[in-house]
Amino acid sequence: MLGGWRALRRCASLPRAVRLRVREALGAREPADAVRVQGWVRSVRSQKEVLFLHINDGSSLESLQVVADPSLEKRDLTFGSAVEVQGKLVKSPHKMQNMELQAETIHVVGPCDIWSFPLKMKERHPLEYIRQFPHLRCRSNALGALLRIRSEATAGIHSFFQDNGYVHIHTPIITSNDCEGAGELFQIETSRGAKESAEMTHFFNVPAFLTVSGQLHLEVMAGISYSEAVEILKQAPQTFTFKPEWGCDLQTEHEKYLVKHCGEVPVFVVNYPYDLKPFYMRDNEDGPQHTVAAVDLLVPGVGELCGGSLREERLPFLESRLQRLGLTDAYQWYLDLRKFGSVPHGGFGMGFERYLQYILGVDNIKDVIPFPRFSHSCLL
Amino acid sequence: MLGGWRALRRCASLPRAVRLRVREALGAREPADAVRVQGWVRSVRSQKEVLFLHINDGSSLESLQVVADPSLEKRDLTFGSAVEVQGKLVKSPHKMQNMELQAETIHVVGPCDIWSFPLKMKERHPLEYIRQFPHLRCRSNALGALLRIRSEATAGIHSFFQDNGYVHIHTPIITSNDCEGAGELFQIETSRGAKESAEMTHFFNVPAFLTVSGQLHLEVMAGISYSEAVEILKQAPQTFTFKPEWGCDLQTEHEKYLVKHCGEVPVFVVNYPYDLKPFYMRDNEDGPQHTVAAVDLLVPGVGELCGGSLREERLPFLESRLQRLGLTDAYQWYLDLRKFGSVPHGGFGMGFERYLQYILGVDNIKDVIPFPRFSHSCLL
Repeated sequence: MLGGWRALRRCASLPRAVRLRVREALGAREPADAVRVQGWVRSVRSQKEVLFLHINDGSSLESLQVVADPSLEKRDLTFGSAVEVQGKLVKSPHKMQNMELQAETIHVVGPCDIWSFPLKMKERHPLEYIRQFPHLRCRSNALGALLRIRSEATAGIHSFFQDNGYVHIHTPIITSNDCEGAGELFQIETSRGAKESAEMTHFFNVPAFLTVSGQLHLEVMAGISYSEAVEILKQAPQTFTFKPEWGCDLQTEHEKYLVKHCGEVPVFVVNYPYDLKPFYMRDNEDGPQHTVAAVDLLVPGVGELCGGSLREERLPFLESRLQRLGLTDAYQWYLDLRKFGSVPHGGFGMGFERYLQYILGVDNIKDVIPFPRFSHSCLL
Repeated sequence: MLGGWRALRRCASLPRAVRLRVREALGAREPADAVRVQGWVRSVRSQKEVLFLHINDGSSLESLQVVADPSLEKRDLTFGSAVEVQGKLVKSPHKMQNMELQAETIHVVGPCDIWSFPLKMKERHPLEYIRQFPHLRCRSNALGALLRIRSEATAGIHSFFQDNGYVHIHTPIITSNDCEGAGELFQIETSRGAKESAEMTHFFNVPAFLTVSGQLHLEVMAGISYSEAVEILKQAPQTFTFKPEWGCDLQTEHEKYLVKHCGEVPVFVVNYPYDLKPFYMRDNEDGPQHTVAAVDLLVPGVGELCGGSLREERLPFLESRLQRLGLTDAYQWYLDLRKFGSVPHGGFGMGFERYLQYILGVDNIKDVIPFPRFSHSCLL
């Protein structure tokens, strides 16, 4: 399974009835005795009469307030330490929270060396700062929330496809060592990062029939085309670093202008130049500006969110293109798919991280990936 | 997204109302006019008065019977070709099926070169045979069904965790190029295939708190231990290729014997020798036979299905073990997790392919993986 499932472990020796997660405790309607909650200390405030703690176990943005007798305070009960608190869940007298925990015992399960701990109490650390600590930043509000949203977004996307009768296919992760020909070709062709290049190869490893999504149908209605886009860019009052010209790829600056031009709404661009796109895209057989049936979905703030195309299902077209590229032998299997009962088909890929950036308004893609890999950086 | 979604594309020019997938057509209760179904021809039987086709679109094990006038037969309407049939869905006079399609038009969307097509009509090909054609074997009954089951099993596992409040974390796929130290170490330590080794690294890339599952709780009740297992093996009436000895890893032959000894039921083996297992497993501090809190779940037919352990959450224990291995610098980040509020935690990994083998009774793991990679083979 490509992925893990994360949760705070409950104390194995306790009966289920007395376990409560912070999120459950916060949402509880009725007071309860003999409650045991585990979490990290987010704040400690010691007063003469009373000791206040806020604890958080990563299940919620909010923390549970713990009220205790000052005698329960100890040296290692610090910000960042992991504690297990047993007590009574009672209605809170404050409007800020529904419930609070009246502690009977506080056990420091794991102390925290606060002098070297890079996160500080009640401080709002910049994303750039916590990015340096990929193994600890999940304990911050921002990354904790991001991880929960990622999980929900993944589940939502999978449910959508499952509910619509799609079959989820697990495709291999090709390394250049395993599969030189194909792997290298796609890396060059897509000229994207390794992850997205791997996504591209999926198109090929799924034998034939990728989904044609609503996106591709929308294309028929919404596709404002590449040629039109270039015209819009040429007439733009602003100067671009890359001069817009038919036959050249759209740069991020162009994509952003197009989205702005259309009123900061998602924009489909269709029918890209034949010579710009890989061999597997369907020839539109048009002229004089020869194009293929490709589509990109551009969104505000991010640029390209989805890219897709109709695939060239016609054997003679594909054969002649592969022949010109000298790739007929390497792609014999791909030609086979056209030889033995081919059908018109298409598909699209969505950059899941870009989707998260778009819906959350996060500027840097590294902040929506739990363990980002980029040039000269493979931390952990 | 690591995976694709597969479905037969509907003809874009048709209104939704006249599209019907084979599975829907087979399950339909009411007759319907103007139905258009797409699929591959699984059989063609031409009689004097009537032409019978069976078509299948990969959505079901069953095929839809198409009844047509012999005048609709044409040269390229062969086994393996992709067709689009328009007609009336009517109650079938035969008990074998609920519905059949009375064809008005049959359009061969993609012909099939039957002379070179490796699958033959109505033939039950051995799994070993179709394994040679990873790009075409999804058109066989066995692999088609497997892909649908894989998809359902994945969804089921994900739903289970989601419903129980777990957060799905996407962990990176480390290549040895990106991250030599860690990658290579795990490869050596786990001495498993590349895929499972990648699974192992997930344990480390998820910052701290992997789930402790029901499996690990069951361990308390069901754990028949490693030491007991070795005793059982020593007293076994059969001779093993590898002599069972305390301190040596259990071989597949041993695992199979243990499962048989327990009456062909799933068996937990717990507390493996300290020196056999990686540094991150929790020291049981027992003696004279020093063990760690590790667990394996052995199942009939497959052997090890799940492996898990409690993690060493105690800083001094982990420090001294890493020091002895000379790995303190490489794993400073892992030590950090113990330094800043550690908690007792554990986790397990399940071999998803082994799980499929177990529930389906499939002997060869290559037949439960869409695109298997193994020594000297990286087809497609």
